[in-house]
Amino acid sequence: MRIIDLIEKKRDGNELSTDEINWFITAYTADHIPDYQVSALLMAILFRGMNRRETVDLTRAIAYSGDQLDLHDVAPFVVDKHSSGGVGDKTTLVVQPLVAACGIPVGKMSGRGLGSSGGTLDKMESINGWHFEMSLEQFKRQLGNIGLVLSGQTTELAPADGKLYALRDVTGTVASMPLIAASIMSKKLAAGADAIVLDVKSGSGAFMHTVAEARQLARIMVDIGKDAGRKTVALISDMNQPLGHAIGNALEVREAIATLHGDGPHSFWEHCLDVAGYMLLLADKASTLAAAKAQVTAVRDQGLAWQKFRDMVAAQGGDVAQIDNPNTLPTARCVEPISAPQTGTLAAMDTTAIGWACVRLGGGRMSKSDQIDHAVGFVLPAKIGNHFQAGETMGFIHANDPDKLNQARSEILAALTWSDTPVEPLPHIYDVVT
Amino acid sequence: MRIIDLIEKKRDGNELSTDEINWFITAYTADHIPDYQVSALLMAILFRGMNRRETVDLTRAIAYSGDQLDLHDVAPFVVDKHSSGGVGDKTTLVVQPLVAACGIPVGKMSGRGLGSSGGTLDKMESINGWHFEMSLEQFKRQLGNIGLVLSGQTTELAPADGKLYALRDVTGTVASMPLIAASIMSKKLAAGADAIVLDVKSGSGAFMHTVAEARQLARIMVDIGKDAGRKTVALISDMNQPLGHAIGNALEVREAIATLHGDGPHSFWEHCLDVAGYMLLLADKASTLAAAKAQVTAVRDQGLAWQKFRDMVAAQGGDVAQIDNPNTLPTARCVEPISAPQTGTLAAMDTTAIGWACVRLGGGRMSKSDQIDHAVGFVLPAKIGNHFQAGETMGFIHANDPDKLNQARSEILAALTWSDTPVEPLPHIYDVVT
Repeated sequence: MRIIDLIEKKRDGNELSTDEINWFITAYTADHIPDYQVSALLMAILFRGMNRRETVDLTRAIAYSGDQLDLHDVAPFVVDKHSSGGVGDKTTLVVQPLVAACGIPVGKMSGRGLGSSGGTLDKMESINGWHFEMSLEQFKRQLGNIGLVLSGQTTELAPADGKLYALRDVTGTVASMPLIAASIMSKKLAAGADAIVLDVKSGSGAFMHTVAEARQLARIMVDIGKDAGRKTVALISDMNQPLGHAIGNALEVREAIATLHGDGPHSFWEHCLDVAGYMLLLADKASTLAAAKAQVTAVRDQGLAWQKFRDMVAAQGGDVAQIDNPNTLPTARCVEPISAPQTGTLAAMDTTAIGWACVRLGGGRMSKSDQIDHAVGFVLPAKIGNHFQAGETMGFIHANDPDKLNQARSEILAALTWSDTPVEPLPHIYDVVT
Repeated sequence: MRIIDLIEKKRDGNELSTDEINWFITAYTADHIPDYQVSALLMAILFRGMNRRETVDLTRAIAYSGDQLDLHDVAPFVVDKHSSGGVGDKTTLVVQPLVAACGIPVGKMSGRGLGSSGGTLDKMESINGWHFEMSLEQFKRQLGNIGLVLSGQTTELAPADGKLYALRDVTGTVASMPLIAASIMSKKLAAGADAIVLDVKSGSGAFMHTVAEARQLARIMVDIGKDAGRKTVALISDMNQPLGHAIGNALEVREAIATLHGDGPHSFWEHCLDVAGYMLLLADKASTLAAAKAQVTAVRDQGLAWQKFRDMVAAQGGDVAQIDNPNTLPTARCVEPISAPQTGTLAAMDTTAIGWACVRLGGGRMSKSDQIDHAVGFVLPAKIGNHFQAGETMGFIHANDPDKLNQARSEILAALTWSDTPVEPLPHIYDVVT
């Protein structure tokens, strides 16, 4: 086969065959096709799209480009979740212990922050001593013993995805639905998930700005999962405002701990309940969503989920005393209120801007080598639809530098849109794609 | 500037600014932008197009990426022609001597054959000793002395074009109107032409299959020329059948010589007359096309054009005795007729297939290192609209290998479409774009 023929076929709006897609991914992974031809093909895919069969073939080819994980010796049924990323999204920290406490082992390979979105590993590193580096054997042992692991990559899954993503990132070919879907799902397939709950974010803080776009991406990913024989459900959830109240690493860990104790923000708990509920449903641990949610609520109320979280932190070298007393987690020197600049109703939030404000405060990385300041961030209970009097406190900024604090306040205020008339609060979930 | 911003801008359907285009071409020529980003940009241009201003900017940037030729010390007004290529297209061999004999110095840098199209330099090399390598000084001296030069590239004109073309060739991004137009016109601008006559071929043997496509390309190129301050005209000419009767190097040189003597095929002469006529018009050597054609016909009838051709051959080391007696040009061992396989009217010809049949016979190159057999080819007076009786001779195959001869006959016959009803002959020119 010749890559030029594949480029021209796709450029002219034709389908690539299964053999062609397999050949392309195999040859590219083996460095037998130059980047300049692959980037042309990716741009043609961006313009022409891929049908369901092509997208599934591409996802499988990428999934099979490296090692395949098989966790069935320690976990009879593997349920995974994926969030498309957002601001204040500490769902994994709460949902994984809840699901593990319901008797479903969950081993998750997470990532660091990217752009304006925080990363699970960065957040957990707020806890003294906690680490995520482990061998595949350690991963499996912990999964068998505790039923809960939060690690980085333990083995090279889907290496073609890493290569393709790096190229897409510098060639303007990230924003293609089939390429996004194949990238996400290939890693889930390679990680050996039997069932996958996708949390596809939609709104001003998400990659997909509209519910329609998010639904389209969700549809493709659910189809991929099903065609690859995995039980798959996608929730279209809101990212027009930060998830929960806390934004920033240690602040989010505190909120996750509070939520596991039953003291978290109600809307965030509702979101965790939905994600965990669907994970139980797919694992056949409950016959209805209501029953699943009842089980999840019970393990929270009995302290079993908190215990799982505590066991995981201990197993991964974390200071348990610190999470038992979250006040001892990293704390910022300056904490100042954000006051409403006017009387009115909060009508919209530029959530990506709020995420970047946290990054600039030190809570994320502007460049790869930046050190994260785990203490800083925002606690922002203000939600769209809330009414404020001018000067009323909307939330707090946690900072270690007064200049950065003032800068962050300006950025937060600039990210808010106000209305003189009432505004409907936003649902936390727009749709479920099955 | 960052190339990723240009890629995303064009991908999203926006215009690139003059500064952006200049920066891109300068940086790419200097190897400061990797091919994998440029190929993504080229594919985005292929899908999104470029407007007139962008295309002119791109053409100029490419034209200015290397040396600029200035021939005004030896030629007060420089007229150039360009043919988009085709089968049997020996127009340059006839038109340049005609125009030079009318007192307009013409120095042309030509190329070798490409794909199914023959190349002027390959054809001329049928003449013993004739060579095209010369320095820019030799080029100018000959242009001053004789008024006629046929050379290869004497200096690196538009190096960005060479780099871009090599990348387009392997990334499926050749077939973009603005990129094709910029590639052709940048070399004409860099070569210092004051006026340009474009011979844009349309039909089964051309890159542009329809008159509408050819007209679109012609429109862009004429606009580029005008916006760059050059007098420019494009003829949309027919390539649904080979031009003239001869296809193959020495056979085409013979036909060109016959045409300069007034004995060439009528339709080919009509074509040469139009191209040369427009060159005279643009050079202000005549006030009407009819007057221009009369001048061109006169220099042919007086033997002055032939004399120019003969002087050029002599100046470039060619054996004049051989062109004085064209029977001494390379001659194939086997010459066999092509007989009509049925009674009927010739309705269509796959002219590209006929071109490839000549290449496979040895008249062109399948790969760069192939040696050309100058003797072989076809003499095919059969034209669309001609009626034949079964078995009647339609033309001749000139070959040096009986197997290849039979293969070529099959290919020629397979390229012909027959009709039982009368078929209109084709015009040689469809339109003139000014």
